[in-house]
Amino acid sequence: MASEKEELSKQLSNEERNFKKLQKRSISVDMTRGRPGALQLDIAMPMLKMAGELDYVQNGIDARNYGDLAGIPAARELFAQLFEVSADEVIVSDGSSLDIMYTLVQFAMQFGVLGTEPWNKLQQVKFLCPAPGYDRHFAICRAFGIDMLTVPMLDDGPDMDMVEELVRSDDSVKGIWCVPKYSNPTGVVFCDRTVERMASLKPAAKDFRVFWDNAYIMHTLNETDVPLANIFDLARKAGNADMIYSFTSTSKITFAGSGLAAMAASKANIDDILSKLAIRKINSNKVNQVMHVAYLRDKQNISLIMQRHAMLLRPKFQLFERRMSEAFGDCADVKWSRPGGGYFISLDVEGCAKRIVELCAQAGIKITPAGSTFPYGFDDKDSNLRIAPSVPTLEEMDFALDVLIEAIKIALLEKQIAKMDV
Amino acid sequence: MASEKEELSKQLSNEERNFKKLQKRSISVDMTRGRPGALQLDIAMPMLKMAGELDYVQNGIDARNYGDLAGIPAARELFAQLFEVSADEVIVSDGSSLDIMYTLVQFAMQFGVLGTEPWNKLQQVKFLCPAPGYDRHFAICRAFGIDMLTVPMLDDGPDMDMVEELVRSDDSVKGIWCVPKYSNPTGVVFCDRTVERMASLKPAAKDFRVFWDNAYIMHTLNETDVPLANIFDLARKAGNADMIYSFTSTSKITFAGSGLAAMAASKANIDDILSKLAIRKINSNKVNQVMHVAYLRDKQNISLIMQRHAMLLRPKFQLFERRMSEAFGDCADVKWSRPGGGYFISLDVEGCAKRIVELCAQAGIKITPAGSTFPYGFDDKDSNLRIAPSVPTLEEMDFALDVLIEAIKIALLEKQIAKMDV
Repeated sequence: MASEKEELSKQLSNEERNFKKLQKRSISVDMTRGRPGALQLDIAMPMLKMAGELDYVQNGIDARNYGDLAGIPAARELFAQLFEVSADEVIVSDGSSLDIMYTLVQFAMQFGVLGTEPWNKLQQVKFLCPAPGYDRHFAICRAFGIDMLTVPMLDDGPDMDMVEELVRSDDSVKGIWCVPKYSNPTGVVFCDRTVERMASLKPAAKDFRVFWDNAYIMHTLNETDVPLANIFDLARKAGNADMIYSFTSTSKITFAGSGLAAMAASKANIDDILSKLAIRKINSNKVNQVMHVAYLRDKQNISLIMQRHAMLLRPKFQLFERRMSEAFGDCADVKWSRPGGGYFISLDVEGCAKRIVELCAQAGIKITPAGSTFPYGFDDKDSNLRIAPSVPTLEEMDFALDVLIEAIKIALLEKQIAKMDV
Repeated sequence: MASEKEELSKQLSNEERNFKKLQKRSISVDMTRGRPGALQLDIAMPMLKMAGELDYVQNGIDARNYGDLAGIPAARELFAQLFEVSADEVIVSDGSSLDIMYTLVQFAMQFGVLGTEPWNKLQQVKFLCPAPGYDRHFAICRAFGIDMLTVPMLDDGPDMDMVEELVRSDDSVKGIWCVPKYSNPTGVVFCDRTVERMASLKPAAKDFRVFWDNAYIMHTLNETDVPLANIFDLARKAGNADMIYSFTSTSKITFAGSGLAAMAASKANIDDILSKLAIRKINSNKVNQVMHVAYLRDKQNISLIMQRHAMLLRPKFQLFERRMSEAFGDCADVKWSRPGGGYFISLDVEGCAKRIVELCAQAGIKITPAGSTFPYGFDDKDSNLRIAPSVPTLEEMDFALDVLIEAIKIALLEKQIAKMDV
């Protein structure tokens, strides 16, 4: 036994020496957030070039003036195509879909949902949080004091047995966060059966809402897209027309936070939301809507634009896959996702996540803090890491992978050695 | 007495005949809201023309990407010039300053202000509402269940004796709405002494805030601007640095609701607000900020742009003044404002406001509903009307004045006759 431990310690010393060499290169690479790279942002520059030539008065609506809180008709039509709903079930808003989600939670807390009691007046409000998931969703819950119940994220979506049971049995469960396509961070696309079960929930709370954050609705990394079932159609069939709120934005199609955001919901929800929103603003930026409609045109054209994004992103995901397969292809302790779209790779190394982030930071590589992908930042297995490869160049990415691979090796060896000491 | 009444009835019949002729012309004119006219909106078109040529990466910040929640430095600098504060006391946001005001009320209701108890948890929250005032301010209070206390608007600002007393004696008074320059709708510019007294309030509530909606900060109708004292300097001197929130937007400088909005407050407030706002959005539309900074440049250049707006607006205000003076120059029952800036004329005809709106509507002239300029829509004298002359052409305006003048005559005669019947 002693000799095995000696052997591991020797290995660890070797890896630490390698790691020190990497540290000396003092390169820094940020892989924390799903930000588009600079070349991706250049793709949409023709939109700004055409801005001066467009007609801002269309069908009697002057986009430069007040009014049309739900957006100009052409912009609502465009997002209706993406959401696969009708235009009067869409609100087009300014850059951030997060803002819309936050706003809907705020409206529910303060005013209730379609006439129900404001959530602020209830003893307890709970949201289901499939995890690993999106930290900014969880941050909204935390800010409003909404209790988060973690639901395991499986290969084809959330654990629906658990979701159905919790939603059915507890009327303080008011919502669930979902990123149904190329999920943040696992890359999962919810399978048809999961979407159907989600649409057919029998919630104890009539103001329960599915927060369907379709952030990566058009964001394939390949030449073909993975289809996602239309939750609105399925919900209508199940008598749940009002149960779905869906969201998306052009942050990763045109400009991040400077594009358009949009939501879809039943007409009853849309009317309810507009009546509340009318107190807050007169309209969103309709000039930007005219520009976006002129540039994006329709769903098919957006697909073409997204192919150009995919061409820039794909090599980074491929590099990750190649380097990690070479290093850990035969190591059961290191698992990672192979997403068909979206912005993230989900990496699992049980018991090592915090240590890996720490080591990476020591060599200039920034990764989203361990635990971020779980409610309250609590990953009980200390396992999940979210890697965002979009910003670094391929060269930076290659270096970052040198560091990450070394960090994983060191963390695993340290864990093994620590186990022997027990 | 009978003969006097007969005489009045005859006059009324005459006016009614005139009115019928106007009705037959079936023209419709909308003077309800402070919307820029189409020619005004054309002024900013060069901004869109230059959009394709600008450099969106400045000082290491790519305006097309995520980040910089408070706005790009150059945009914060620009608004700092207008507010006369420093750039780190400014947040630049998307199109609507109403959105910022609503957001600050919502933050206070849900989370408190700089660490105080959330207003939602208090028995009662009150705002002081100088009236006539801006209906959308009052609508925010109504939505959040904030009680509104009406304070008379005098010729140089709100009745400060009343404001001081209410703020000092009642810790449930948490805010006051002010449009300090070219006030909506009275056109009043708060005098230096009023600004100083506002800045020096001794509120019982430490989370009391002055909501200083400087919507018409640059919006003179004449060649020279009426100066407004710097409330931030005065508040600092009085030990009230954190008591002021100020707001403005470019809705009536560039595009309505599609421009930039901004707020100013102490650094402590700004940090508090940003920490809450960070849960809701990652950034505002920074591409629009780059465009605005390039086009607007600085305060002096904005003054030049506003001169072009004034040239379009002034004739409409002058026409109103000329026509109304001719009709009612010697009639003590009809009073109206002669604003030096802003978008409104305030018209007072005691006991007749509702009737005048009704008559105008019958002849195709839309005016903001009577009472709108008061909390709860309640004008106890049924006197005040808000006229927004910016949208109609001069010809439309002339016709609208034919109708308005006839409507006032009829309403006054009806009132006189009714009095005799008592």
